[in-house]
Amino acid sequence: MVSTDIFVDRRSFDDETRSVEERSEAVAKNLPAVVAAALRAEGWRAHLGDVAPERIRDRARLATLKVLRKSELPSLQKARPPFGGFKLEAPGQFARLFSSPGPIFEGEAEGADPWRTARALNAAGFRRGDIVLNTFSYHLTPGGFILDAGARALGCAVIPAGPGNTQAQLELIAAYRPSAYTGTPDFLKILLDAAVAAGVDASCIVKAALSGAAFPPSLQAEFKGRGIAAFQTYATADLGLIAYESEARAGMVVDEDIILEVVRPGSGDPLPDGEVGEIVVTLLDERHPLIRLALGDLTAIMPGPSPCGRTHTRIKGWMGRADQTAKVKGMFVRPEQIAEIARLHPSLGRLRLVVTRANDQDAMTLFAETETPNDEGLADKVGASLAAVARIKGEVRLLASGELANDGKVIDDRR
Amino acid sequence: MVSTDIFVDRRSFDDETRSVEERSEAVAKNLPAVVAAALRAEGWRAHLGDVAPERIRDRARLATLKVLRKSELPSLQKARPPFGGFKLEAPGQFARLFSSPGPIFEGEAEGADPWRTARALNAAGFRRGDIVLNTFSYHLTPGGFILDAGARALGCAVIPAGPGNTQAQLELIAAYRPSAYTGTPDFLKILLDAAVAAGVDASCIVKAALSGAAFPPSLQAEFKGRGIAAFQTYATADLGLIAYESEARAGMVVDEDIILEVVRPGSGDPLPDGEVGEIVVTLLDERHPLIRLALGDLTAIMPGPSPCGRTHTRIKGWMGRADQTAKVKGMFVRPEQIAEIARLHPSLGRLRLVVTRANDQDAMTLFAETETPNDEGLADKVGASLAAVARIKGEVRLLASGELANDGKVIDDRR
Repeated sequence: MVSTDIFVDRRSFDDETRSVEERSEAVAKNLPAVVAAALRAEGWRAHLGDVAPERIRDRARLATLKVLRKSELPSLQKARPPFGGFKLEAPGQFARLFSSPGPIFEGEAEGADPWRTARALNAAGFRRGDIVLNTFSYHLTPGGFILDAGARALGCAVIPAGPGNTQAQLELIAAYRPSAYTGTPDFLKILLDAAVAAGVDASCIVKAALSGAAFPPSLQAEFKGRGIAAFQTYATADLGLIAYESEARAGMVVDEDIILEVVRPGSGDPLPDGEVGEIVVTLLDERHPLIRLALGDLTAIMPGPSPCGRTHTRIKGWMGRADQTAKVKGMFVRPEQIAEIARLHPSLGRLRLVVTRANDQDAMTLFAETETPNDEGLADKVGASLAAVARIKGEVRLLASGELANDGKVIDDRR
Repeated sequence: MVSTDIFVDRRSFDDETRSVEERSEAVAKNLPAVVAAALRAEGWRAHLGDVAPERIRDRARLATLKVLRKSELPSLQKARPPFGGFKLEAPGQFARLFSSPGPIFEGEAEGADPWRTARALNAAGFRRGDIVLNTFSYHLTPGGFILDAGARALGCAVIPAGPGNTQAQLELIAAYRPSAYTGTPDFLKILLDAAVAAGVDASCIVKAALSGAAFPPSLQAEFKGRGIAAFQTYATADLGLIAYESEARAGMVVDEDIILEVVRPGSGDPLPDGEVGEIVVTLLDERHPLIRLALGDLTAIMPGPSPCGRTHTRIKGWMGRADQTAKVKGMFVRPEQIAEIARLHPSLGRLRLVVTRANDQDAMTLFAETETPNDEGLADKVGASLAAVARIKGEVRLLASGELANDGKVIDDRR
């Protein structure tokens, strides 16, 4: 018999303001155990190879481990169903079981708030007794449960409305007067407009945790104008909460159970803070370890702590997709190959392969930042590496440092 | 902070085989407290009137309290939103909030298995580690959660599949190999047929708890032939589990937290065991009291204990709807009015008003069972009562006891 508190004590959010040193000490203590736990699962063992967990005590050591790309999961899971050997528990030991597009199969852990979204909802001002209209779907994919569990853990009452059926949702709004909304920004706009059209007073909704889609400034202004304090939550079906917006509205703060790295797309190499690259996450959970999962999303790490006092890594939020594979002259060119060229030539800065169409033929040009942009010998060597790695010839143009935009774009298909 | 076990100890089902006397003693102890709790809610106070809770210690005393018709709830809730004053807690204190067609607004209580379906699923053979494909909807109405919570409380892993999207469900069946199904009988048939058509092996499903629709003998035979032990569960959004089928397959056993009465449709008067009538339920829960709710469903109480050893009241299962209102000569005639005639003439047995069309006019005939079918004086008096109560004249025909079918039909509209 497992006993769990269904409510989260708000003091458990105190770790958000601990010093960077305290957090590093906690990581030094927990991370080796998490890696050791992962190695008890055959999928992780096969993926990580020969690793000494006791040595993986900080971000630098973590960065020596192989990245697992989310795009590889469907085939890995197909080879070892259902979870690719990446789980310590059998499917029947999970609380709930889901599939996400891919398909990727994912389990919900036992216990209160298994997706750890209470922290994000707390930062968004959700409190015990709030009534939350949750418009994410509860069916097949875990979106609805991810936010539901966090709200329940805080002591909120949840209306599991799901997406769509606007008329029924207006009826529920009129009857229960919810104070909070969870769902996509777009659907909140649809609901509010439908309420106005139907003459239903939806002014009870004064806070929102938004996820699953971009939140453009136009919608931010509109919700603010309607009296709604709306905050972004970055979560995925793979591991739940990753980062969340706080009242400072200065980027998103990474969840305390997550180590977040930003790497050169296609590689496992961490980029300097501020550089746009691919998000790689590690979940500090011995029962459900997850080591360096590359999500295919782009972001950049922001310097320093948040003005709200939270001290964990801050990111700029979602900045696009890192999956930039292009087909050139019939061959796939992948970000992994551009990252390989960067490894072969450590003096290069940002790299960008631009694919165009000239004389009815595919053409590609590799732009490369360097301190010595007039070094023709270097250009020739990089050109040879490009031909060897991509098996297609392309032009190379050297640029001075800082000439390429900081947008995470590694392959720019302009055809 | 509320602490709850999320798993049900199977010993908590031991109360199913206690003696009838033990159960009566428990009722004598709990029922007065439940009635007293109800009277703390203004809706119940207004509905029940002046009641001395300490005297309501058994079924006979319970039967003196006024029945609350489910069909009245929408207007009562509209007058005192959202719950009509029938709840002790504010909406924000519930775990989740729903609406059912009507609309009727209902809250889910805090804690493990708030709808008490673990008992039914246990009787249907569901066990810890089972993987349950739950195809009831989790959106707006509580169906999905009602079965989900029971399965989770037993330690099963639940796939929240929801209704529809057959192709995605087959993918989940192939990946997770669920051992159990919850949903309607019809959708199980659709899924199994789709699996055959798609070449997906669904033979992993060997048990099922079915609800929400009739389970005809043809489907019972088909599922048995496919190796599935399927059991019926009778639950509603108002109060969760009401009765469940056990391995004896001899009617349905009433849930231990429910007092179930079968009354003359339109009245609150209990019928003798075996007579078909309307189901009236009382929920023995001090935090969520529910006194004599008439559900509008027909059933009959079966004599004696179930062969499986369970000793609580058994019912025949769902036998149709008790809502038999008809419009005759522009006036509504309701089962309540027929029940009123029965009260005015206690010597009558079953009553049935048959509505027909003769000479382009509505016509009605009241058939009434009596020990004295040749008593013309009685027929005249009953005819006068019919005209007074229904405000429409009709013919009266007296019949000997047992001549009317035992099917709960009080108004038979044959037009």
